Amino acid sequence: MTHFSEQTIQNYLGWDEFYAEDIDEKIDFFSKKGRLYDIIFSQQFDRDFLDKICLLANAVRLLAKTKDGCLKLSNLLSHKRAMLYFVQPSTRTFLSFLNACHILGLKVSDIRNTSTSSEIKGESQEDSIRTFASYVDLIIIRHPEAGFSEKTAWVLNQTERPVPVINGGSGPDQHPTQALLDIYTLERSFEHIGGLDGKKIAMVGDLKRGRTVRSLSYLMKNYKDVTLYYVSPEVFKMKDDIKNFLVKHSIQYYETDDFMSMLPQVDAIYMTRIQNEYKDEEAGEVEDYPDFHFRKEHLSVIQPHCVLMHPLPRRYEIEVEVDKDPRAVYWRQERNGMWMRVALIAYIFGVEIDIFNELT
Amino acid sequence: MTHFSEQTIQNYLGWDEFYAEDIDEKIDFFSKKGRLYDIIFSQQFDRDFLDKICLLANAVRLLAKTKDGCLKLSNLLSHKRAMLYFVQPSTRTFLSFLNACHILGLKVSDIRNTSTSSEIKGESQEDSIRTFASYVDLIIIRHPEAGFSEKTAWVLNQTERPVPVINGGSGPDQHPTQALLDIYTLERSFEHIGGLDGKKIAMVGDLKRGRTVRSLSYLMKNYKDVTLYYVSPEVFKMKDDIKNFLVKHSIQYYETDDFMSMLPQVDAIYMTRIQNEYKDEEAGEVEDYPDFHFRKEHLSVIQPHCVLMHPLPRRYEIEVEVDKDPRAVYWRQERNGMWMRVALIAYIFGVEIDIFNELT
Amino acid sequence: MTHFSEQTIQNYLGWDEFYAEDIDEKIDFFSKKGRLYDIIFSQQFDRDFLDKICLLANAVRLLAKTKDGCLKLSNLLSHKRAMLYFVQPSTRTFLSFLNACHILGLKVSDIRNTSTSSEIKGESQEDSIRTFASYVDLIIIRHPEAGFSEKTAWVLNQTERPVPVINGGSGPDQHPTQALLDIYTLERSFEHIGGLDGKKIAMVGDLKRGRTVRSLSYLMKNYKDVTLYYVSPEVFKMKDDIKNFLVKHSIQYYETDDFMSMLPQVDAIYMTRIQNEYKDEEAGEVEDYPDFHFRKEHLSVIQPHCVLMHPLPRRYEIEVEVDKDPRAVYWRQERNGMWMRVALIAYIFGVEIDIFNELT
Repeated sequence: MTHFSEQTIQNYLGWDEFYAEDIDEKIDFFSKKGRLYDIIFSQQFDRDFLDKICLLANAVRLLAKTKDGCLKLSNLLSHKRAMLYFVQPSTRTFLSFLNACHILGLKVSDIRNTSTSSEIKGESQEDSIRTFASYVDLIIIRHPEAGFSEKTAWVLNQTERPVPVINGGSGPDQHPTQALLDIYTLERSFEHIGGLDGKKIAMVGDLKRGRTVRSLSYLMKNYKDVTLYYVSPEVFKMKDDIKNFLVKHSIQYYETDDFMSMLPQVDAIYMTRIQNEYKDEEAGEVEDYPDFHFRKEHLSVIQPHCVLMHPLPRRYEIEVEVDKDPRAVYWRQERNGMWMRVALIAYIFGVEIDIFNELT
Repeated sequence: MTHFSEQTIQNYLGWDEFYAEDIDEKIDFFSKKGRLYDIIFSQQFDRDFLDKICLLANAVRLLAKTKDGCLKLSNLLSHKRAMLYFVQPSTRTFLSFLNACHILGLKVSDIRNTSTSSEIKGESQEDSIRTFASYVDLIIIRHPEAGFSEKTAWVLNQTERPVPVINGGSGPDQHPTQALLDIYTLERSFEHIGGLDGKKIAMVGDLKRGRTVRSLSYLMKNYKDVTLYYVSPEVFKMKDDIKNFLVKHSIQYYETDDFMSMLPQVDAIYMTRIQNEYKDEEAGEVEDYPDFHFRKEHLSVIQPHCVLMHPLPRRYEIEVEVDKDPRAVYWRQERNGMWMRVALIAYIFGVEIDIFNELT
Repeated sequence: MTHFSEQTIQNYLGWDEFYAEDIDEKIDFFSKKGRLYDIIFSQQFDRDFLDKICLLANAVRLLAKTKDGCLKLSNLLSHKRAMLYFVQPSTRTFLSFLNACHILGLKVSDIRNTSTSSEIKGESQEDSIRTFASYVDLIIIRHPEAGFSEKTAWVLNQTERPVPVINGGSGPDQHPTQALLDIYTLERSFEHIGGLDGKKIAMVGDLKRGRTVRSLSYLMKNYKDVTLYYVSPEVFKMKDDIKNFLVKHSIQYYETDDFMSMLPQVDAIYMTRIQNEYKDEEAGEVEDYPDFHFRKEHLSVIQPHCVLMHPLPRRYEIEVEVDKDPRAVYWRQERNGMWMRVALIAYIFGVEIDIFNELT
């Protein structure tokens, strides 16, 4: 397959053809002048980018500790306007992006309900997208349909007035900003012990449908000597596509249903809930697998530096009593999401240098 | 009929009596100190006002091209607060007004859903209106009920603390800011060939129920030697009230159902969709009239300077392939709506001089 | 019962135990460094606080009269972010808080609809609360469930990163900011005749279920020689708990169903509507008691300085014709709510001194 340029895409491919292409082949279409322009897939992030965006998130977080720093941040993009188009309910991601925009001073329009939309008047999705883009400088999308963010960026990149698009979660597969905040939380947790390189990471729960563990697995190709432990009931095992990917990139992994034996061996445990909002016949209606819960008594078994993560919301996977242990970092992880999204938006508008300058 | 003063209205008329009065007789009630105060009807706009507001929209648009200009705009009204009361779904108009407010720095409260309203506690419409006005400096209203914006302004103008009201579309008849953006788009399209005076404008589609074409026809009385072409199926012909108005003001017009013959003759073609959300027995359930669609092949027939407009959303009236032709200005027209609304709000708060000063 | 410290609560009590405690015993838990931290109960306000917050509301109101003053106010907390979590429909209180935040420059996130919430993914209320707190510096809550705001503050005060909580109305009982704005309106109305001390206040209507009259009655313990007149149909008489409280604090009160005889005797009349959204078997389905309505002809009977108040929304309790009398202060009372909420938020973030300094 030839690597096609923006021009080629514009002239020869319709959306269905473009969508069917391999992701790696499409990355250039969402970049401009050597920088990411739209944030659609986790596959867009290489090690350079990941290192830089983590540094930037750190800088943002430190700046925001003072009133003066907050004011400087909020002046950076006060001349810009963003749109949050959140068709799929997601309080957490919505608030995280909204407050990230507020931190940078962007004015925000939001649509959280399609019944307020022009769709009822028969407008096409493409036309609605162009309309949103008419009024703002950035569009952040959460949509139940796989590929919707990608389509938005694809449509806009062919108009005279494109604006960047960030995928805030689309369908069962891609949620690239969640992947970024997970990487940031891991790097931050290990900042005094060499970072993420060489660490052992366990992923527990619904590995089959959980897009967070899938994205995070994928991103491990950017780090050296990471070992993955996939810990799940038989029905929720990680799918072959990811395992093939790991083999191809020589990333070591183990699969097990023995939760207890894994606990003392790893540097991070990434817990996930059963995603039963996505129907799955094989998995059936069972919502809960108590043998894969992290309970208070497990705290004495894990290593002193081991961190416990969770993308939230949780159900029963982690006992509430565990929250007070300093190794339970999931609440910090959630807040890291906000700092990471500030960093990402700052990057998109090219003001990262202003942030680094403020700190020195 | 005597021309009645504000005082008279206050003392002698109830709402029903006032509402039944002729619009031209009521215009003074919505003005203060020789300037428009509330924006309720297209009939409030005379040539002086139209020329001035188009110049102001231009100034805003140019200023907004630089960060410095954006910051100056956003400081103009940062001490003011607006309320968007959008009971009727309208993503496009909502976003246009919201972002216009953001551009000027106004803080915005929005109500987009009546179920969050005090109506369920038995409050009267008048009391709800006074409540909204208690908290903000400007109210922008979209409502399915004809006359609702007018009533709001009428109620508030009789209180100790009135605030200006902008009609963002009420019922099947009035949508004055749409009329302004249409005028602005026409004037801007013809800026190098003498402006709107003397031009030939075709209006195509559902002329019977389309409020945009009705308002635009009305405003033609402010321009010299304009000729109108009403192009529609028999069931959607322009109503007699507008045609009588044109005769009275010596504005030439033609009616035809021959779409093709009209194409090469005109300077602008204003396409509209079938408004089948407003039920009409005569028109029946037919949604689409392919003989009145603008297709790619028609581009070779229209004049080189002819512009193609549409208030959006569109269905099938204009083929998507037409969008890339530079004469297809409907996406620009949509964005003009935002600039025009910025201009209008700036005018209402009397800061237009600050905007003109920034440019010189 | 021993007065328990913050430490004790944290270590020994679960939520159910804490919630069952007497309110007076819990006040310290919602204070920090001798100042109110969370605003949950009317019982938290003593005379010192009430006097100070009324002065502050006055200062805010005066400052907001000029553009310069508005800009100074809007810079005070522009580095802070608030969350409005309004699960229960309440346009009035929502807009009042939202615009209070806007006046101080706070950026606001709002959730007005639980269907957008993570509850559908099985998250616990406590976890949702922690999530909200992750992103903002202040949470303002309106909730149908009694105790919800208190629980939120209780949960957050036990985390590493608490943020202040304001109760914007929870269930049938507490609505402390309404109590503050009522006190402010009374003090402001009587500012030239010695303030609220020594005045005669009538409360009329549904005294049984109306939380405003209950809170206001309670706060009278902070004022000297106030006399209360409870005027209601038999089925809506004030409950014994409040009457016992008045006896305990030697506050004189009368009960009557004779609306007319009360009118000439009092300094303020606080009208309320029948709260039939809270079902009550004894009261039945009757919505209206015309003998307890304030009508135009009553204006000639009340004293020249007597003020007429109402928490709004009203139904039929006060004839609309009464609105124009200068003694009808309910619209001003509503706007006082916004100034009082500005004052309260300013107090919470400790910037009241900056406001007082601006005025001198």
